Amino acid sequence: MRVGNLPGIRRLPLYLDALRHFMRDGVDTISTSALAARTGFVVSVVRKDLEMTGAYGKTGVGFDARELALTIESFLGWDNPNDAFLAGVGSLGSAIINHDEFRSHGLNIVAAFDVDPGRIGWRVHGIEVLPIAKLVDLATRMHITMGVITVPGPQAQAVANLFVEGGINRIWSFATPILDVPDHVTVKREDLSAGLAELLVRSAARRSGPKQF
Amino acid sequence: MRVGNLPGIRRLPLYLDALRHFMRDGVDTISTSALAARTGFVVSVVRKDLEMTGAYGKTGVGFDARELALTIESFLGWDNPNDAFLAGVGSLGSAIINHDEFRSHGLNIVAAFDVDPGRIGWRVHGIEVLPIAKLVDLATRMHITMGVITVPGPQAQAVANLFVEGGINRIWSFATPILDVPDHVTVKREDLSAGLAELLVRSAARRSGPKQF
Repeated sequence: MRVGNLPGIRRLPLYLDALRHFMRDGVDTISTSALAARTGFVVSVVRKDLEMTGAYGKTGVGFDARELALTIESFLGWDNPNDAFLAGVGSLGSAIINHDEFRSHGLNIVAAFDVDPGRIGWRVHGIEVLPIAKLVDLATRMHITMGVITVPGPQAQAVANLFVEGGINRIWSFATPILDVPDHVTVKREDLSAGLAELLVRSAARRSGPKQF
Repeated sequence: MRVGNLPGIRRLPLYLDALRHFMRDGVDTISTSALAARTGFVVSVVRKDLEMTGAYGKTGVGFDARELALTIESFLGWDNPNDAFLAGVGSLGSAIINHDEFRSHGLNIVAAFDVDPGRIGWRVHGIEVLPIAKLVDLATRMHITMGVITVPGPQAQAVANLFVEGGINRIWSFATPILDVPDHVTVKREDLSAGLAELLVRSAARRSGPKQF
């Protein structure tokens, strides 16, 4: 089970997953090496990752599993749902609104926007779909700082512009294009088609190296 | 507009996006430097990426835009939809079935599976939801080689086991856990909660470096 390089932040959910596994089995104290064995990362990597979160264990004893899980969740920002706007209520946008799990991972969608008059007034999982013309004003008045882009690629930049104008400085974008935004804005691109491409190309190549990434 | 490191394969969709932009503007011949300027990558990176696909342009002239787009799509495997099974017809699974765009990116979902008796017999976008007990036999008989996992994390390994037993060797997993699979199986993890964590941590850190990744 060799896993390709992941940024440290992306390994943290795997430790959480492992901690929950141990806790389900009634194990309350966890050593770094147990986490390493369960996740497949080397001990020095696990130790460095946990240090990044500020967690500390007792020498020779290990970490309190519940406490470590809370520390990691807090570091990831998952203990604090951020009110967010979403633009583009197609299949993917609707799914993200519907996916309750994201609420426990820092994302609380409070309003959704679309350009399609046929969708305005829809309610998706209790969230009303509003015309995109209202986005900037509402974002400003509600002090929204987080936005999700689920519109088709060619419309993504226009939505990003509205988000930035409304004061949003953290954008989670499911569109392919790189967004042209001011320096104070952070963008996480989640290009699912690129993920598919990685899977297809790497499985076809059958080259050596990690087959999981 | 500085963008964090991306594997080369993940840059290719950005060139396609740029090519479509140029073609919409009526530009039919594209130079490497025009692609570099539009995507924000340096010329040497663009050249290396395009070489990987086997594309070739005319010295001093550039690439035929349409031909280059087809070459990239073919390299990515997007010109050839692969029949695939999907397990877990919750909000995310349904969205992936509904999202027609994936069909032009190599993914053709032909059957969906769930453990919830309440969901069996549902039709999602024309795809029938079948009991998971039928997965292995059907995958074998239909020679399915690709599978999508959209079940909750704790159930992901069990689904992966069924996929592998049914002959599936390319898995696109939206669950957090690293999957324990044989060496001939390629797994692309698409951990959306980890993406959210990256966005939250990096925006909070306000450290220098790329703010888009």
